[in-house]
Amino acid sequence: MTTVSAPITAADVHDAAARLRGVAHRTPVLRSRTLDGRVGAEVLLKCENFQRVGAFKFRGAYNAASRLPPEQLARGIAAYSSGNHAQAVALAARELGTTAVIVMPEDAPRSKREATEKYGAEIVTYDRYTGDRVAIAEALAAERGLALIPPYEHPHVMAGQGTAALELLEEAGQVGALLVPVGGGGLIAGSATVAKDGDPRIRVIGVEPEAGDDTRRSLAAGRRVSIPVPHTIADGQALHTPGELTFSVNRRLVDAIALVSDDEIRAAMRFAFERLKIVVEPSGATGLAALLSGRTGPLPDRVGVIVSGGNIDAERFARLCGGT
Amino acid sequence: MTTVSAPITAADVHDAAARLRGVAHRTPVLRSRTLDGRVGAEVLLKCENFQRVGAFKFRGAYNAASRLPPEQLARGIAAYSSGNHAQAVALAARELGTTAVIVMPEDAPRSKREATEKYGAEIVTYDRYTGDRVAIAEALAAERGLALIPPYEHPHVMAGQGTAALELLEEAGQVGALLVPVGGGGLIAGSATVAKDGDPRIRVIGVEPEAGDDTRRSLAAGRRVSIPVPHTIADGQALHTPGELTFSVNRRLVDAIALVSDDEIRAAMRFAFERLKIVVEPSGATGLAALLSGRTGPLPDRVGVIVSGGNIDAERFARLCGGT
Repeated sequence: MTTVSAPITAADVHDAAARLRGVAHRTPVLRSRTLDGRVGAEVLLKCENFQRVGAFKFRGAYNAASRLPPEQLARGIAAYSSGNHAQAVALAARELGTTAVIVMPEDAPRSKREATEKYGAEIVTYDRYTGDRVAIAEALAAERGLALIPPYEHPHVMAGQGTAALELLEEAGQVGALLVPVGGGGLIAGSATVAKDGDPRIRVIGVEPEAGDDTRRSLAAGRRVSIPVPHTIADGQALHTPGELTFSVNRRLVDAIALVSDDEIRAAMRFAFERLKIVVEPSGATGLAALLSGRTGPLPDRVGVIVSGGNIDAERFARLCGGT
Repeated sequence: MTTVSAPITAADVHDAAARLRGVAHRTPVLRSRTLDGRVGAEVLLKCENFQRVGAFKFRGAYNAASRLPPEQLARGIAAYSSGNHAQAVALAARELGTTAVIVMPEDAPRSKREATEKYGAEIVTYDRYTGDRVAIAEALAAERGLALIPPYEHPHVMAGQGTAALELLEEAGQVGALLVPVGGGGLIAGSATVAKDGDPRIRVIGVEPEAGDDTRRSLAAGRRVSIPVPHTIADGQALHTPGELTFSVNRRLVDAIALVSDDEIRAAMRFAFERLKIVVEPSGATGLAALLSGRTGPLPDRVGVIVSGGNIDAERFARLCGGT
């Protein structure tokens, strides 16, 4: 029998935290008496919607980019994303004094495109119906000698994302459970690694949209399972299969997956808006949704939740949450 | 010539701060690189939308109620308000172990009514077209022996509201200007009193909706002027004349009034939502609106702004800000 070493350790997350100090925001941990009363537990919300670029993604992108050899960094970095990872890589490049090229579908929302360009990145578009974004990004990176920063399938990205949980636990002290949204699985892989190292008894619960339960199915099957690309308002979690690296971590460390419906996500976004006075995007609200809808099963006295992002424009919020 | 003593002094605001310690939230002071870039100054936002009851009003209500003689407090307190002051008085009563009666129009929004009842207050309704809320509240208070807590015309209320500015200045250090929304004038009276005591050179700028510029007109005339009850989305500032006590302070201490249109307020609410990820009600956004629209005139390098409240439900936000 051979021992396979884990792709990341808690030490990697601590190293990432040192690199991110003074660069990423140390986001606030919010509490609400109303929320505690509703849930029947003390809830600590780690507000990554207040992170730079509006989501936790900056942590992983910056950590990964900052570890590139200087000559590689100088040639520039690249990513394929139409979401928060695009802005995260663009800002990481600017902070590190280099350039970024982001491959985006040509019909990506104008706001996402402008937000990425604002950080000085070059946008290369493709037709999402005929093009393969991974192939396009890889060809571009090879041609120009750029380093491709993946959204989750990389140890430095996972370690960077885990710093969100590290900060939460440093500030909150002991919690019995940690709720983390699951898309590709990078945030929960880094978070579970550092949380279980600090306290092996902590229950790490991933949260997926009902329609996009690829990680839940994969954990149940004991291997990576593919589902059709899901239709859900939680666009940050509309993936069809877990990452290979992230799944190798999560199958060992994730205790359970809670599922939430789009209506439960909308209700959580409204709760965040009206009671907490904060703006949370659909994927960012899934942990809160699982709590408010009671879909986590019995909870311990103290629960940490990662609110992973807040990038939603007023129009989309109005469409999703403005009905009476 | 006689010297008329001011209704409040900076010492009153410091006393109020001591009473509010551990009862009111010490709300965060937010900064945003994007905002600083847009305005060309360092902007410090005192976020009273995160205050208990969602607005600065709790500060004044609690300070005033806590100073009542014990036997008076035990008989209970009363207020007339359909806005944030109603919830503020209700929560102050609960915190002080007494009861509150709130006089509200019978067509007040259900959400406001429920929020007030949630804190244990009794609601007495009247017909806003035929009834006089002040007379009703005064009769009720006399009959039941309750102490009426006015929304701004009281030294303890003004002193309590001023603690928002005190905390902002304690945290921010020196600022060249302070922007404060003006409704009845209690928040700016307390804020100007403590700010000018700390630094007489600080420029205190009030912000009113264009349609409700009663304080601007009154300052220009050197006496309280009445205007027709204004139509504006900034419902917390839809007053027709300044308070007598508040105006006696503000005519000495307020340097200028900036006006903002409803469209400028909407744009500021959207900016707060999309860039700062925070929820701000129309009146709460007027300071930010004045900054973003350049209606303050030339600004110093560092500017403090009181974001006075965040009580708006998702439906109203969608109606006001959800259009493309």
